[in-house]
Amino acid sequence: MEYIQIFSPATVANISCGFDILGLCLDTVGDKMIIRKVPEKGVRITRIEGASLPFDVHKNVAGVAALALLKAIETDFGFEIEIIKKIKPGSGVGSSAASATGAVYGINELLGKPFSKSELVQFAMEGEKLASGSMHADNLAPAIFGGFTLVRGYDPLDIISINTPKELFVSVIHPEIEIKTEEARAILKKTVSLKKAILQWGNVGGLISGLFLEDYELISRSLHDEIVEPHRSILIPGFNDLKETAIQNGALGAGISGSGPSVFALSKGEKTAQKVADSMSIVYKELDIAHKIYVSKINTEGIKKINQ
Amino acid sequence: MEYIQIFSPATVANISCGFDILGLCLDTVGDKMIIRKVPEKGVRITRIEGASLPFDVHKNVAGVAALALLKAIETDFGFEIEIIKKIKPGSGVGSSAASATGAVYGINELLGKPFSKSELVQFAMEGEKLASGSMHADNLAPAIFGGFTLVRGYDPLDIISINTPKELFVSVIHPEIEIKTEEARAILKKTVSLKKAILQWGNVGGLISGLFLEDYELISRSLHDEIVEPHRSILIPGFNDLKETAIQNGALGAGISGSGPSVFALSKGEKTAQKVADSMSIVYKELDIAHKIYVSKINTEGIKKINQ
Repeated sequence: MEYIQIFSPATVANISCGFDILGLCLDTVGDKMIIRKVPEKGVRITRIEGASLPFDVHKNVAGVAALALLKAIETDFGFEIEIIKKIKPGSGVGSSAASATGAVYGINELLGKPFSKSELVQFAMEGEKLASGSMHADNLAPAIFGGFTLVRGYDPLDIISINTPKELFVSVIHPEIEIKTEEARAILKKTVSLKKAILQWGNVGGLISGLFLEDYELISRSLHDEIVEPHRSILIPGFNDLKETAIQNGALGAGISGSGPSVFALSKGEKTAQKVADSMSIVYKELDIAHKIYVSKINTEGIKKINQ
Repeated sequence: MEYIQIFSPATVANISCGFDILGLCLDTVGDKMIIRKVPEKGVRITRIEGASLPFDVHKNVAGVAALALLKAIETDFGFEIEIIKKIKPGSGVGSSAASATGAVYGINELLGKPFSKSELVQFAMEGEKLASGSMHADNLAPAIFGGFTLVRGYDPLDIISINTPKELFVSVIHPEIEIKTEEARAILKKTVSLKKAILQWGNVGGLISGLFLEDYELISRSLHDEIVEPHRSILIPGFNDLKETAIQNGALGAGISGSGPSVFALSKGEKTAQKVADSMSIVYKELDIAHKIYVSKINTEGIKKINQ
């Protein structure tokens, strides 16, 4: 195999109470990437479409992730990367993670899979570091593993695949403004009250139990964020209205996707998820905010090879 | 049925990262209680063995819990309670919870089960309030539901039964000193760093996942408490040595049981749990600290009727 085409999915991280640990993989939104084995050693980015991103491999998350992988294995050939961005950078659904995972997944496939999924996440974290200034895996893990993933911790990196209830669908609304991950991080308080922290880990326990038990009501009761959402939501226009209308229209819960500005809602069934998406769109139409809207099942396969 | 004999089990709350939310039910340690339906209305405590506790129903957790239940239902008869304590008060394995749950479970059985398990926990919380000054359910829930339980939150009370892996055994060592729950609470800081809180809820997610997946290694990796143990463990003589020897002898993890002074360890298999218990006992023998030691499977049934 000399060349591979990939669907590199968008992801939702920071799922309500699961700040910094819980993410999920989308199915209908993602980048296309082509990775090609070439005689010249090293990594080159030969095509970028759909976004204005650097071709310099040391300044592009896909390039940095690819170089991290190639540092761990000796090859007497190199790789060319084409990136067709469908996920807007800075939208909060793992745009940089899609680029980073696409590069390492594709190269790993062309090399005959010498690396495990966890190792791929580790290489891709180098790319995420370039994008956000910190090493995190909460978008990378669901992109590589699919479904819901828990990043239990980083010392060492510990990723756990969580069961994905069959009827769970995601609605995502993306207002066309940009929030930098670094800025969204800066708004967070460095300390939290023990009382709120206990509420939060109670909800984490409830959400994970709800996913394993496929108990939609329990998932709904657990989708609360006591710690981060109160601060970050002020950066997102109309956040409270979006959340309220989503829940009124049947969503199990809603929250900030990643560090925003996208807002996600989880629903039982595609029909409800569509209704929820439509209702959120109306909020932004009334506020005259340009936006995109997506409805997706949860992609339990993760990043994958495609034919076209 | 005019009379019922009950095994009211000891419980381990605050399981490492699961402070205030996660508990489990023991099988070999528990009180015996006898509840009798009598013509005179109200509640009387007619016998207390094994501990020096008040007979005044308003000052006894069993009495207070029983009265809370009887406030919710009209009866033209009353109940007598006999308490044979095997769980030492203040030992950190849910002594007051055993008394409170025994009273409400027994009366509910004699009344033909008008109340749900969750309602019984709610009545028993009144008894716990008398014992510790705050309404909490983290020992009551495993005593009533059996197995591992998550108290997701209190508004309203939300208890979730978590899967109990078959081969999980508990070792408990109880140094014969007393730590009051109120004092153990007072030692806690009111705020925690966001960084540590994230580690903690990552571990909560890992522990709950490990229980559902019956993944003993994951359970082991998740049994850490970044928040409470560093403060409370200083109240327990030889805590670090107990924990170290438990893990060296094969325990998956160890921590403070409830608010102490008992220390628990979880192990895969009864043989390992026994070895772990023996090793912890040696630590206290060397330190010349009087102690009791228990090894128990996890009681998935919870509080139950017994014949003798």
